[in-house]
Amino acid sequence: MTAAPSDGTAGGAAGGAAGGPAGGAAGGAAADGAAASFGARLAAGMERHGPLCVGIDPHPGLLERWGLADDVAGLRRFSLTVVEALAGTVAALKPQSAFFERHGSAGVAVLEEVVAATRGTGTALVVDAKRGDIGSTMGGYADAYLRDGSPLAGDALTVSPYLGFGSLAPAVDAALASGRGLFVLALTSNPEGASVQHARAVHDGTPGESVAGAVAAQAARLNAAERARTGAALGSVGLVV
Amino acid sequence: MTAAPSDGTAGGAAGGAAGGPAGGAAGGAAADGAAASFGARLAAGMERHGPLCVGIDPHPGLLERWGLADDVAGLRRFSLTVVEALAGTVAALKPQSAFFERHGSAGVAVLEEVVAATRGTGTALVVDAKRGDIGSTMGGYADAYLRDGSPLAGDALTVSPYLGFGSLAPAVDAALASGRGLFVLALTSNPEGASVQHARAVHDGTPGESVAGAVAAQAARLNAAERARTGAALGSVGLVV
Repeated sequence: MTAAPSDGTAGGAAGGAAGGPAGGAAGGAAADGAAASFGARLAAGMERHGPLCVGIDPHPGLLERWGLADDVAGLRRFSLTVVEALAGTVAALKPQSAFFERHGSAGVAVLEEVVAATRGTGTALVVDAKRGDIGSTMGGYADAYLRDGSPLAGDALTVSPYLGFGSLAPAVDAALASGRGLFVLALTSNPEGASVQHARAVHDGTPGESVAGAVAAQAARLNAAERARTGAALGSVGLVV
Repeated sequence: MTAAPSDGTAGGAAGGAAGGPAGGAAGGAAADGAAASFGARLAAGMERHGPLCVGIDPHPGLLERWGLADDVAGLRRFSLTVVEALAGTVAALKPQSAFFERHGSAGVAVLEEVVAATRGTGTALVVDAKRGDIGSTMGGYADAYLRDGSPLAGDALTVSPYLGFGSLAPAVDAALASGRGLFVLALTSNPEGASVQHARAVHDGTPGESVAGAVAAQAARLNAAERARTGAALGSVGLVV
């Protein structure tokens, strides 16, 4: 179902592993425009560099181990050093938004620098922010992270489906329209996740599909429809597993 | 189970309604230190001003209706006008982070201004950001939104439990330690939410508690334990319903 790139996290920092796009890989020549889709670009990047996604997780302990202060200057030094060392040599970089937000708007400005420094290097930039909301609010997040010209828009965004997979539609639409991708939280490895992700739909008293299974199935459907159009090896909607 | 303040949203903008703390209200004199808890402060604010929480949802259409440009200056003008008009006269203000993030780090800096302008007015400031992650990453969000001295820390934060209610522990700890609160996504009104929130735990083939029910029960347990310590009328963990 998923092709999960191994998740190398700089300095051994914690962070959710972004699994690969759901729907499986398949051959076939790319149709017109397919090169612009996130799935096609990620497939090409993994072909070139191997399936490695490196997390950028500048939590306080990691900054300390690097001999850096836990402030905006330390955050910036760490993050841009990782980008300088690895952009263009790995398939993807994945900065964890929380560790930028904890320094306030000045930290978010550093995340913008990470996005800008990675752009055009051939390495995909996945903003790990696990955003999730409904309607115009989800549209606001799509504007921020999935729109050409936004300083926070990398190549893909992690999103959270607690409000229902369908609530992510504005992000799906924005991603596909701009050649960007999503990684949707599905079945995570932390033990607390089971209470939500293993819960099951019940019809007439009979347990059916799990929450995580339904998320994966809906991502796979989107990818199948997209790949029928583009012919790309991968769709643009991945899973966090 | 919940005492949901009516949710007045400035300009009729969309946005999730933040329900009141779970666990029900009860009488009893506040014990020492209870005045510092979010639940106690929110209860006092609702007593004084009535149970009104006003959303600050500066989406593009709303800025346009106000005759403002869809840029950082328009965002700032709208948001600070709402704070100036209402801080000190309503129980709570609830800015929607997505509509600040869509303007990049400069928009997040405006959210910091909203937080600062509301502080000390007697109106609770709920940052509606629906953050959710695990371990040190959840700790990063707690640092950003629930820590004294952080420019993004208001009085409470909305959080998302897709990774399990237990994954929110770093935020719960930070909130209770600093007199702040949380509103946890539980049972939302959007139709797509049922696919996750109505799913049920299954033991030996028998459907048990729903995801939303389990979230509410865990919030109620936290509030009962807190109120046993503080004697406050409300606990500090609310639900988004």
